[in-house]
Amino acid sequence: MANPGDKVQIIYDDKAVEGILMPDSADSLFLKLESGYNIGISKEKVKEIKVVEARKDTKKGKSDIPEKKGLKKIIVLHTGGTIASKVDYSTGGVIAQFTAKDLVDMVPEIKDIANIKCELVANMMSEDMMFSDHQKIAAAVKRNAEKGADGIIIGHGTDTLTYTAASLAFMFERIDIPVLIVGSQRSSDRPSTDAAMNLICAARFIAETGFKGIAVCMHHHSSDDKCAILPATKTRKMHTSRRDAFRAINTEPIAFIDFKLGKIDFLNKPSDMTKGILLKDRFENNVGLLKTHPNMDPELFAFYTKNYKGFVIEGTGLGHAPTNLGEDNLKNHKILKDFIAKGGIVAVTSQCINGRVHPDVYTNLRRLSNIGCIFLEDMLPETAFIKLAWLLGNYSPEETKKLLAENLRGEITERTEYEEEFI
Amino acid sequence: MANPGDKVQIIYDDKAVEGILMPDSADSLFLKLESGYNIGISKEKVKEIKVVEARKDTKKGKSDIPEKKGLKKIIVLHTGGTIASKVDYSTGGVIAQFTAKDLVDMVPEIKDIANIKCELVANMMSEDMMFSDHQKIAAAVKRNAEKGADGIIIGHGTDTLTYTAASLAFMFERIDIPVLIVGSQRSSDRPSTDAAMNLICAARFIAETGFKGIAVCMHHHSSDDKCAILPATKTRKMHTSRRDAFRAINTEPIAFIDFKLGKIDFLNKPSDMTKGILLKDRFENNVGLLKTHPNMDPELFAFYTKNYKGFVIEGTGLGHAPTNLGEDNLKNHKILKDFIAKGGIVAVTSQCINGRVHPDVYTNLRRLSNIGCIFLEDMLPETAFIKLAWLLGNYSPEETKKLLAENLRGEITERTEYEEEFI
Repeated sequence: MANPGDKVQIIYDDKAVEGILMPDSADSLFLKLESGYNIGISKEKVKEIKVVEARKDTKKGKSDIPEKKGLKKIIVLHTGGTIASKVDYSTGGVIAQFTAKDLVDMVPEIKDIANIKCELVANMMSEDMMFSDHQKIAAAVKRNAEKGADGIIIGHGTDTLTYTAASLAFMFERIDIPVLIVGSQRSSDRPSTDAAMNLICAARFIAETGFKGIAVCMHHHSSDDKCAILPATKTRKMHTSRRDAFRAINTEPIAFIDFKLGKIDFLNKPSDMTKGILLKDRFENNVGLLKTHPNMDPELFAFYTKNYKGFVIEGTGLGHAPTNLGEDNLKNHKILKDFIAKGGIVAVTSQCINGRVHPDVYTNLRRLSNIGCIFLEDMLPETAFIKLAWLLGNYSPEETKKLLAENLRGEITERTEYEEEFI
Repeated sequence: MANPGDKVQIIYDDKAVEGILMPDSADSLFLKLESGYNIGISKEKVKEIKVVEARKDTKKGKSDIPEKKGLKKIIVLHTGGTIASKVDYSTGGVIAQFTAKDLVDMVPEIKDIANIKCELVANMMSEDMMFSDHQKIAAAVKRNAEKGADGIIIGHGTDTLTYTAASLAFMFERIDIPVLIVGSQRSSDRPSTDAAMNLICAARFIAETGFKGIAVCMHHHSSDDKCAILPATKTRKMHTSRRDAFRAINTEPIAFIDFKLGKIDFLNKPSDMTKGILLKDRFENNVGLLKTHPNMDPELFAFYTKNYKGFVIEGTGLGHAPTNLGEDNLKNHKILKDFIAKGGIVAVTSQCINGRVHPDVYTNLRRLSNIGCIFLEDMLPETAFIKLAWLLGNYSPEETKKLLAENLRGEITERTEYEEEFI
């Protein structure tokens, strides 16, 4: 009988395929092919399963890599995610695993760019992250920066990579080394993996530029020629599976790294005079994110105002929420008004993602701004959520209201003259 | 003393500006300039306000336009929104107003394309729409189609235009005339308005093609040369203010209309043999849309499962929700599992917007699919919300589960062979 992990040949229809057997579901078998891709085969169709080679349990040694003189010292903090993933035979998908030596085994080129040390901070898929995980990552960044690291790479699951990037950007009021968050959309056992190129580009960017601060480093094209350094508070995962899923929103990337030519081009050279490290790492847990839509239930608004100290509305268009016509919508308006009157904070962003909200153009917008909703310009809803939780963790509600609409970490871009015309 | 609606000159700093006075806010005055743009002036800076001309109240006559032989008959249903907006002097912004004759006054060219009749269905900004408004619009479409209209144009606020488009697409199982939903990102009193071009392109598309069914007609470029006909269930407003904000997601537009040359190009000629009209217009109100993020509160999952018969998760990446690590996340998983076991419906989409969710790639995804979450391929979260509410309004929970993941109105595109490789 074949077991998960065995190399098998499966005969079905008129075909035979060979691969590593993964755990099955109720009606299908799954094989991981030599190419790294998975296929599912309906159990009904399977005629025969032959074990070609029984599963081998291999153990890898763990060791540091010898240091080279003259190279910068980069610490790679690992938190899990696809970038460190291998097939997980307990459930058949891909889960996070990581040992220090694995990284240099996977990306040998990195040894010649910098002296690499690895540290395992967490081992999880990023959708499960809590603020406490962000705090752990920040603590590891601080510790390593204080011990003399020239730069830090954080390996991270792609799902909530940009939430963590924003979180670190707010937590570090000052950080005087480069901290790049790197993920991979395809796991390292696939030919199309982007793990190696993203890591190499991040290491080169740290080794060859004087950049300081938090940023994201990911594929820029789906071809393997360029990575982008993306702003921590204005980047969004815009595709479920493409390698070039990460895009700067309402702004440009900070820089491009040409993978083949090794050239680095800054689009906006940051003039950063930052000295030292200042970490403010508290968060308020009772903060929410509420996306509006037609037929909104007033009970949902009521839940948010009852349970949270503040929340971010991901409204429609220029920052609308259903608050005007109809009995239910009028209820929504009253609920928001009472909440704000009692000290609650309501911030407004847009589900359009691109562009800027505005408190003045339409009657309904004025209705929201008149009761004290705070319009967050061109801030991403996800960044706004992180910022609100961070502000309420570290500042009074009054300070929070003031700081929310101010640009602290590049999360708001100034309105241009061209835009001004279209208010 | 100057009143809202008066033409005034305001002296402030060293400047003088002339325009129509709008209602003020606590600290600013607002002027609508000759150009159609608004400016705000801090009250502190204002030295003098001179009334140039007192407000004139004008009344417009209402009348139909004489019919021309040989032209198709198009009914324009108006629901409010920027496309019909004028300055509203009660609060100073822009609210919806509409009279039948206004349309042809605003867009005289339309008289030569088709015989136009207008009907006012609603007068609201679209963020306030409820399913009951969608039903009213559908009833007006049906009534006019049955009375012999060759096509229908629905003027609609842009904020929730695509939600309504999806709603109409599901409600009309069959509709044998073209129904185009048209909005405008800039109001008709501005030089940069897109109202006229969007309406003219929609009328031409109806007059010159044999298209049947529901679609959206909006600016394709920010230059004034092309409109796109966009699929009702796969279009999203992707910018708060640009005129070319509406984009087909995970698919192409249906057609382009070259405004200057009058040429119509189909990208995908729909082979529609639809005959007659079949309207299923019920909705279930107790349906939700839940966007996930780091640090998710289990109480929020609990609220959705307690209050709704089903809900759409707008997860991260390939369709993840925080359900695995940590006490809170494990609670989330149990809440979802119990809800589904008792007959609740949980559908999964992605906040990446582009790309496809997948139930099998990662361990955490299998955890969701194993408890019965339904993965909705490349369906937009907003379309999924509308579809779920519509299905539960018209079908049993069991039928709903089955139909959710089936492509009924173009809301799911088939996985291509190229994509298949990357499962």
